[in-house]
Formats: sequence, C-alpha cells, structure tokens
Amino acid sequence: MSHHEISCGLEYITTPNLQECLSEALQSSYAFIVMPIVHPRFRRSHQSSVGTVGGFSRSDMLLASQDWNSRIVGKLSHYLDLDSESPIIRQRHEDCLNEELTYSRGLGLPAVMLSLHSTNVSNLARNVLSYLDTSHHPTLIWSYVPMFCQRTLRDQESEENENIEVWDEPWRWWSTFHERINWDKRVGVVVEIPANLPPQEILKRWLGEPIKAIVVPTSLFHNNKKGYPVLSRAHQQLVVEMIEHEAQVIVSGARRSNIEYYLQYLYRLWKKRPYIADDPMLSYAKGWEDYLQIPLQPLADNLDTHTYNVFEKDPIKYDQYQKAIAQALTDIQKKRKGESINNESLSASTDIINSDTKESGQGDNALKEIDKAITVMVLGAGRGPLVRATLNAADITQSKVKVVAVEKNPCAVVVLTALAKEVWHNRDVTVIPGDMRQINLSPKADIIVSELLGSWGDNELSPECLDGAAGLLKSAGISIPREYSSYVAPISSARLWAAAKVANVTSCQMEKNLETLWVVYMQNKHDIGEIKPVFTFEHPAKGVKDHKGKEVLDYRGLPVTDNRRSTVLSWEVKQDNVMHGFGGYFDCLLYGKEMISIVPSTHSPGMISWFPVFIPIKTPLRVKKGETIKATFWRCRNPRKVWYEWIVEVGIRATPMHNNNGRSSEMLL
Amino acid sequence: MSHHEISCGLEYITTPNLQECLSEALQSSYAFIVMPIVHPRFRRSHQSSVGTVGGFSRSDMLLASQDWNSRIVGKLSHYLDLDSESPIIRQRHEDCLNEELTYSRGLGLPAVMLSLHSTNVSNLARNVLSYLDTSHHPTLIWSYVPMFCQRTLRDQESEENENIEVWDEPWRWWSTFHERINWDKRVGVVVEIPANLPPQEILKRWLGEPIKAIVVPTSLFHNNKKGYPVLSRAHQQLVVEMIEHEAQVIVSGARRSNIEYYLQYLYRLWKKRPYIADDPMLSYAKGWEDYLQIPLQPLADNLDTHTYNVFEKDPIKYDQYQKAIAQALTDIQKKRKGESINNESLSASTDIINSDTKESGQGDNALKEIDKAITVMVLGAGRGPLVRATLNAADITQSKVKVVAVEKNPCAVVVLTALAKEVWHNRDVTVIPGDMRQINLSPKADIIVSELLGSWGDNELSPECLDGAAGLLKSAGISIPREYSSYVAPISSARLWAAAKVANVTSCQMEKNLETLWVVYMQNKHDIGEIKPVFTFEHPAKGVKDHKGKEVLDYRGLPVTDNRRSTVLSWEVKQDNVMHGFGGYFDCLLYGKEMISIVPSTHSPGMISWFPVFIPIKTPLRVKKGETIKATFWRCRNPRKVWYEWIVEVGIRATPMHNNNGRSSEMLL
Repeated sequence: MSHHEISCGLEYITTPNLQECLSEALQSSYAFIVMPIVHPRFRRSHQSSVGTVGGFSRSDMLLASQDWNSRIVGKLSHYLDLDSESPIIRQRHEDCLNEELTYSRGLGLPAVMLSLHSTNVSNLARNVLSYLDTSHHPTLIWSYVPMFCQRTLRDQESEENENIEVWDEPWRWWSTFHERINWDKRVGVVVEIPANLPPQEILKRWLGEPIKAIVVPTSLFHNNKKGYPVLSRAHQQLVVEMIEHEAQVIVSGARRSNIEYYLQYLYRLWKKRPYIADDPMLSYAKGWEDYLQIPLQPLADNLDTHTYNVFEKDPIKYDQYQKAIAQALTDIQKKRKGESINNESLSASTDIINSDTKESGQGDNALKEIDKAITVMVLGAGRGPLVRATLNAADITQSKVKVVAVEKNPCAVVVLTALAKEVWHNRDVTVIPGDMRQINLSPKADIIVSELLGSWGDNELSPECLDGAAGLLKSAGISIPREYSSYVAPISSARLWAAAKVANVTSCQMEKNLETLWVVYMQNKHDIGEIKPVFTFEHPAKGVKDHKGKEVLDYRGLPVTDNRRSTVLSWEVKQDNVMHGFGGYFDCLLYGKEMISIVPSTHSPGMISWFPVFIPIKTPLRVKKGETIKATFWRCRNPRKVWYEWIVEVGIRATPMHNNNGRSSEMLL
Repeated sequence: MSHHEISCGLEYITTPNLQECLSEALQSSYAFIVMPIVHPRFRRSHQSSVGTVGGFSRSDMLLASQDWNSRIVGKLSHYLDLDSESPIIRQRHEDCLNEELTYSRGLGLPAVMLSLHSTNVSNLARNVLSYLDTSHHPTLIWSYVPMFCQRTLRDQESEENENIEVWDEPWRWWSTFHERINWDKRVGVVVEIPANLPPQEILKRWLGEPIKAIVVPTSLFHNNKKGYPVLSRAHQQLVVEMIEHEAQVIVSGARRSNIEYYLQYLYRLWKKRPYIADDPMLSYAKGWEDYLQIPLQPLADNLDTHTYNVFEKDPIKYDQYQKAIAQALTDIQKKRKGESINNESLSASTDIINSDTKESGQGDNALKEIDKAITVMVLGAGRGPLVRATLNAADITQSKVKVVAVEKNPCAVVVLTALAKEVWHNRDVTVIPGDMRQINLSPKADIIVSELLGSWGDNELSPECLDGAAGLLKSAGISIPREYSSYVAPISSARLWAAAKVANVTSCQMEKNLETLWVVYMQNKHDIGEIKPVFTFEHPAKGVKDHKGKEVLDYRGLPVTDNRRSTVLSWEVKQDNVMHGFGGYFDCLLYGKEMISIVPSTHSPGMISWFPVFIPIKTPLRVKKGETIKATFWRCRNPRKVWYEWIVEVGIRATPMHNNNGRSSEMLL
C-alpha cells in the first residue's frame, strides 16, 4: 500500500460558467472537476463526415491550458450508443464520439469519462482503441459503471431471490470493454459507491481492477450531531481501501452541505486510517507496488554490491538461519554424545577385568570425538552473512566449528578473505573460491548451509547447485535448507498483465514477456483460487530408480538426481472472473522447525528479501463460476539450462503452451 | 481438386527382416511401408536421462539412406503415455518418445506415426512442439486416430441411444492435440476408415482436417466373383474423396488376398473416378489449391500485362457484361421511342389545324432524338475487353453508341489508343487517360460500364471509384454493375490458418498475416455455417441524409455518399468444431437479370477471374454444438485509405479486434 496523498474531484452536471465552477472547486481545495465535454447550448450537426471537429462546444480560450490539462476531466455525451441496433445511429454516434475525443485531446484533458451500459461494446471499444493507437499523448479513458445494478437488485429483493447476476452485471460491462481494448493500461474504471454495499468477495474482485477513481454520491453522507457530513463505518472502510489502491475520489450529486465539508471529512478519514508503516515489508515495498522486475540469475551472473547490501539488510532471514544452524549443531553434538555413551557401555561389556583403564582409554577417544570440530560449509557465502550466522550459532550452542566458505563470485571472495583476516582471525574460517559444483574438499561437511532460493523457490537453480555439491556432504550430513516448495494461485490482474505485455516495446517481445516470470510486489490483483504447492525439492536429494527399482549412481557413486518436474493443479471458480496469470511464492524448511516463507498465509514476519512472482498467461481467460481451472507446470532442463513451461485449460478452452523449449525465459546452468 | 497420382503404403506390425519386407512391398509397387521404430528384440533402458539415443533399435546400416528417407514411415511405441497419472511414467515415457524421435530424425524418416487415445495430450504436444522447434528438417508427425470410437458406438447402439459423442471423441483427441501444437503445418492426421461409415456431416468435418493418409484395413474389402478384393460403393466414394484431398493410403491388417490386388484395385478406383477436368474453373485452379495470395490493389498499383492476360481470358465474365450492356441499350432505346411517341401525341393534341407539318416537324426532332448516339463510358477500360463487349452489344441491338474509354494506367492507355486507331477506327471510340474520380466530361454518359470488383466485392474500392465518377453519369443514367454484395461463412481450416500465419517468417509479421484478407482457392476446409451477405453497394449510390432527413449534397451538387459499413452476423453451431476464420465471396447484379457470382451456390459456371478470400481470426475458436457464433465486420475509411476490421464472439469468449485502424491491411485511395 502506497503512502501517497488523497486526490479529490468535484462533479458538475452542467457548467453554465466554467471559470466560476472551477474556481469554486479550487477554492474548496478540490484537485479537479468533472464536467460534460459538450456544452448543452451547442447543437450538433449529424453529417456522417469522418471525425471533423465542428464548433459544437465552448471555446478553448475559456481556461488557461494548464487548467485544461490538469484540472478538467471531460464527460462524453451520455446518449452515445455506438453499438445500437440501427446502423445509422451506430455511424452517427461513432462520428460524435470521435468528435468529442478529438476535441478533448485538442484541449489536452488528462482524462475523459465514458459510461458503460451493457456488454455490447465492440464498436465503442474499436473506436477507443483506434483513438489510443493514433494518439501520441492520448487523454486517458475512464470507464464509469455503478458497482452493481441497483434496479436489478431491487427487482431481485422484491422477488426475495438473491441473484449473483445483480453483482456481476456492471462488472461484466467493464470487464468485456476492457477485454475488447486488449486490457490497455490507458483505460481504467470509475466505480460509483452504492448505498448498500455488496458482499466482500465482490468488493475484493473490484480491488483487482484498475480503479482510477470512485464516485461518492453526497447521498451516502449523513450529518453527525455537529451537522457535518459523515459516512457509515462500512463506507469509510471501503473508501479508504480504494484510496490505498490509488483510486481518486469524485464527490457528486446534490449538495446537502457545504462542499468543503465533504472534502475535509475525506481528508480526516485518510489521515486517521490504521497506520501500517511499522511493518518493515510494507515500508520496504513502498513505491514498488506492481512494478515488474526480471528475476536474478546469481548462477549465470555475479551479484553486485547493491544487491548484496539489500539482501544482507534482511532483519529476519539470517536470524532464522542462525536458529536452524544452532539446532543442527545441537543435534550433532547430541548424536556424538549418544555414540560416545554407546562406546562406553560397549567397552564396559567387553572389558570387565581391567576396570581402571576403562575411563581413560575408550573414554578419551569418545571425548575426542565429541570435541572434534563440526565442519560447516557455507555454499555461496556471498559477503559472509551466513558465515556470521554460523559463528553466532556456534557461540550460542558452545560448539566447536570449522567453517568453510565457498563462493564463486571473485568480488565477494575478496570481501570474504578480508573478513577472515580482519574479523574472524581468531576463528576457524577458510575461504574457498570456486563453483560448489566443481570443487572437491575433505574433510566432508557435517552441515552444508546455503541460500540459493529465488522468489519461486527453485528458480535460481538451488536444486542443481546443491545436487552438484552433494559430494561435499558426509553421508549422514545435514543440509540447510532441508526442503523447499514453490506455490501458485490463479489471479486476475489486468494491470500486471498489461504491464508485462508492454514491459519491452517491440511487438515481437510481447510474446517473450508473457512467457516470463516477473518478480513484483503485487497490489492491484485478485486471487481467483487458493494457493497450492507446485514443485518440492529435498536435500540431500533422493536418487532416481531404474526400471528394476534400483537407485542409479553416477561416476562419484552419488545418486543420480532428476530435478525435472511436472505438476497438474486445478481450482474451482467461485465467481465469474478473468484470469491473467498466477501469483507465485515459496516456503522453505531450513532445519528442525525453522522455516522461511513468502506464502501470504505463513509469511515470515518482516522478511523482505523476496517479492512474489507474477506468471502471466498469453491470452487472459474468462472463467465462469463453477468452471474448473486446470493448470500444468513443467520444470525442464537440458545440459545448458533449466526452464519452466505452463499451460492452462478451462473446459474446452486453453492457453497456448508457454515458453516451449525455454524460448522466452531460461535459467542458465 | 488436384490431379496428382495416388500414393499407397503397406503397414507391417513387425519387420523380422526389414529388407525382405521392404522389397516385398516395393515389388508389389507400394510406395512406402509403415513399421514400428523400436525393434521388439531390443530392451529399453529406463534411466530418465535426457533424450540420449541408446542402442535400442536396429542399425541404420540395414537400408540405404534414400530408402530410410523416402520409403519408411516409423511408428512410435504404442504404449507411450506422456500424460499418465504417474509423474514417473510421464517422465520415463517422455524420455522414450524423445529417444525414438531423435532416432527417426537421425535416420531421416519422412514421417513418424503416433497414436492418440484421449484429449489429455498436453505433455505429448509439448514434447512434439519442442522436437519440431529444435529440428531444421524435422520428420513430419502423423497422428493416428480411428474415425470414431467403434467400442463406444456399439455401447450406444446396445442402449439404442444415438450419441454424437461417439463421432466426436477421436476427432476431439486429434483436434485438441492439433490445438496444443498451435495447428502446426508439420503435424497431420491419419484416419482409419471404419466398416460402418458415420453420417455425412462427420465425414465433411474430417475433410476440413489436414489428412495426410487414411488407413484402409484389409477387412473392409470383400472378394468379388472373380475373387478379387473390392470395396463397397460408400467406401469407394469416401476413399476417392480422401485421395482427392491429397491423402495417401495405407493398406493394413491380415492379408486375405495377394497384397498386389489391394493396390491394383485402389489404382483402378482412382483412374475411373468421375473426371472433372472439363470444368474450366477446376482445371484453371489446378495447383493453386490452398495457396494464399495477397489481394491486388489496382487503384494504388497499376496492373501488369500478365494480370490483364489472365483476366481477359475469362470465358464468361465478358459475355455477361455484353448481355447486360445490350439489355441496357435496348431499354434506353425503348425509353426514347416512348418519349418520341409522347411527343407525337402531345403535338397531335396541341396542333390540329396544320396536320401535314406534324410528321415532318415534331416527328423529325423525335426521330433525331431516337437516332442520337447512346454515350457509353467504360471506366477502367484496361486493354479494352469491356469496350469490345460494348461494341458487340451495340451491333447486336443495332444501336448507335459513342464509346468513351477512361483508363488511368499509362501502359493500358497505349494499348487502347492503338486499338482505337487500328481495330475500332470505323467506330466512335474515344480514349481518355486519367483517373475516373478526377476527370470531367460532357456529354455525360447514358451508361457507365466498369469492372472494379475484387474477390470480396468492394475490396478493390469499386464503391469509392464509382462514387467519385458519379458526376460523369446523366441523372437517369445506368450504371453497370448496378449492385454488388460481399458474403462470408465461418470455416474450419487449420491448413489455411497455419499457412496464413507463417506466410511471412518473422513472428512480428504473424500479427499482420492474421489480420489480412487472403485470395485463395480453398480446398482443405469445412464450412461451420451457411454463407451470409455482409456489405451491399448500389450504383448510382443513394446519398446520406442529415438529421432532418434531407439528402446531403457536395460542392458538385451530387449526393454525399458514405461507404463505411458495419454488419453483425450470427450462426448457430451445428456440431462441435474449431473456427479458424471465414470464407469470403461476392455476387454482382450487372443489369436487368444479368449476374456474375463466385458464391458457391450461384457461382457463374466457368467464370475464372476470381478465387474466394480467406479471412483469418488471430485465435482459433473452439465452438460447441448449439453455441452461437457472432461476427461483426466493419468497413472503415479515412482520407487516405479504406480497411476492414472484424471481431468474433462466442458466448463469453471473443477474438481480439482485428486490423484496428487498418494497421495490418489496407486499401489505398
């Protein structure tokens, strides 16, 4: 949620004197006004000439241009019906629409508002699309709809029959229109807040739409004892939520009170909203809402200082690692003690006569065994945070550790070596430059510690790296992390989809953009289904079996692993919606009970190292209540790279296969 | 229909000795054999290693390479189930498939055959797609399915319940698989001909699919009195129809007779089929089946000699024009006679006394009027065929004509001038170089004759040209043509769609290709709905009315016309299918009763000047029986160009808007 200021506008049904209206609004410190583009005083000529601008409205000399292009939202004529039954009306209204759009562009209005009345919008969409495609700096399009059909609702109530259609109708008008213009970013929706609010899931769905503004009719306000206009608690909450989603507010309708009061009330509402800046994640994510980034490839590319800085700042992640390492050290000590005691009892049973040598003889070896340092290898040590965590854990658990820090990034190696000399000189820390998949060390590790996870778990090749390093771990050794899984939920988010599509200009690139995972702090989206696990990886990994069920070993005698995966998931659709892709997350069991997670329901509080991923689908899918969304994900590899492929099927419809052969996105080995 | 030779193959369930099998087949003059790729003698290792080719089948030294790559169709192992419930089986069979495909490519087999068993084919499709995308000269994929589910059919019959599913099942296996691999051209279907044939519409739907071969089981043959194997009449007809659609034939199953006999029978069948070469259209279209061409732009570009040659060859078109012109000339003479008689009776009533001057006086003028030459302007005269038609019509109707030939193409003007001098020197023929929309002539024309029609009627801008030339026609004058309409029917044709998509290599171009009209003689397609009219144009054109209902006139005092159009059409789907676009046609009323048409039901016999158009949609739409296909077409214009836009909606699904703003295809004014 962003911490921007609130922006309010005032609607005028007519503006007999434009300057007066504007200055009235500005004096009451509204930011802009909404007014009809066509002045009622002007008659329209209905020659079906192609979009010529006639003298059909007021002169643009009335206002200064900075007022036109910052303070005026124009409303298109309400009667325009470009999808009428009659071809003549279709044609005439088409010409009128283009006349008004051209005029608005000429004035440089920041936005024009049009009303939607049905799902029959092909011709309207076609013309808006043409307008957007032919304008370098087009006026933005705000599509006005009520939140649901009051009329229909009343009909339904009278029939005492709760019909979901009531809620869906205007949403579908908007959704269909948005689809027809290819979910264009420059077109948003303006929703009028109704007196009686719909169920929560309906509101949640609206929050997934790109809401540019909400219309708050003055009729929603009632006067408090002091005589000031106020909103009901439910309305307060909704309005604040909408503003947090960057919606502007348009006050509209008959004035039952001084218009300043409405604005002042909204300001107070916004100021006194539950303040959330103390959540480190939210303050960290501030400004990054719905901003798409390409995932890192730490294996192929070396991370830079900045990135290390960001990650090392994480207040939670390394605490969790430290706890996990401490737990592992304790368990190993316990185990060794156990063994030494066994040795004692063993020796006791075997050697009864010479009882006084017992303690000193066998016992010494056992104690030696207990005292022997525990070898902890930190694989991908970066600039040392996990080494630090290991040393802390050792201190806490009073265990003797030999730390080996393996790192392939030369710049990081320099830092590590310096740290080893200057900071850790009195500790047993060795720095080994190199790729964990190629080096060979002895003694082998009792514990391997690594942090190679991406926002979608395995998407930075943690499995391949750790399997490659399996030879460094003792047979009964411990890997931290021990297990991790990726997760997805189908989501509706025209905003993220459109952002991904145009992330790179050329039309050829679009293909690629919609076959790529994007790291993004998702705000303007709506979950269509619950979050489900996709791929899981364990360490040390189990080997594949041959057709006789025997484990296959490689030349090092280590089990051959297969990190290719495929998973089929399905969700039942709870309400009509449009699917644009998936939200992706991961969780990870480090050791014992110690977890890290970015799955919303189990998110490690305050952990900021990972934003989720957005996994788009090429063709948004319109899904109906009761239908089943079936998604298949593949994790594929060849000798050079690893990549994901995915496809979504709904009934007889399906998306194309995504990222076949890793043509658009890949993770280089 | 093409006149190629028939190509037959022989299937072997096993090939204990490959050379022997092959030479047996060749000696019986089969063109190729179908055999399993994996030799049963070889065991498979099931390590899930990534597509390594092991010694799992026979050596490629067995045959000469020209045999491998021309005479062997390999069958993939029947047990492969890449979409099994079990992830392990999925993975293993995936590896086997790639092993067999890689091996087939290594041998250079022309095609491999795989069997489909359900609509659950995502993983199979994914792997085939990868195979095709990573091979420069991939082995073609033949997907084998029965024509329908015998088993299910029997079940249904036992329940005495006629269920369409029976017919749809295997078709849907294929159709889903084909969709998953994006309708790739390199993947075709092989259909097994069943003993009892399905209803006609099912067969017709199959003829819309890219059928590479049909499997004809020997069990379909019965022995005639001479003891030779023959097919039932129904089967004969189907086999011939399939071969005409370029399907090869695979004879398969237990040999109840000498295998040569089956082949000899099929040859006889093909030879004695109803011979169709006497239809000029069919012989003209020979070799052009499903071959896509960009429509001409005679207005923007000047036609070349070759094109003129082709069009002037048309045996029918100019006959029709000649008849129409003759009719028009006769009608004008009748009209003039009528007027002169009126004059007589008029004069008779007015002047009774001086009766002897009557005949000579008024009568003379009347006769003069009758004798006055009829002015016929040929607009877009090209190299004169319509001038010739006009002169012939004049001779036939013994009418005196003054012919004015207007032509903008300098090369054609040269020819016309020469003709006027050398051939038409004793006739009244004037050649006027220039654009019919700009020139001004007097006297005005009694008749205007033009032929500016494209395959989709108005798509070569006939309406704009003739409206531009309206000033050349007398107020009561006649335009030939008088009226024309475009038509469409929704069609299924993966072949045309795939051909359009890749007509131009770059992936950016695909967008454009699927927003373009293509001129093509369509063979491999299936009509999903009947043919319906889209846009109609009349000449002389009626003017647009203003909001008072008054006709709007331009500076010349001529009615302002508006040739923009929009039409909404809908079709009910009769059986499950996949829509890939539209077939487009036109018909045209020249004058009186004289028509020309390329609408199949009314096609002018033997007229070869126009092939139909294929209008693709970007995203093929899967349509279910009972659903309604709603299509909207727009004809748009701006000062520089004219273009079409279209969108298709089925229930809650829709294609994107096509060719918005004419971004991909346009007709330049």
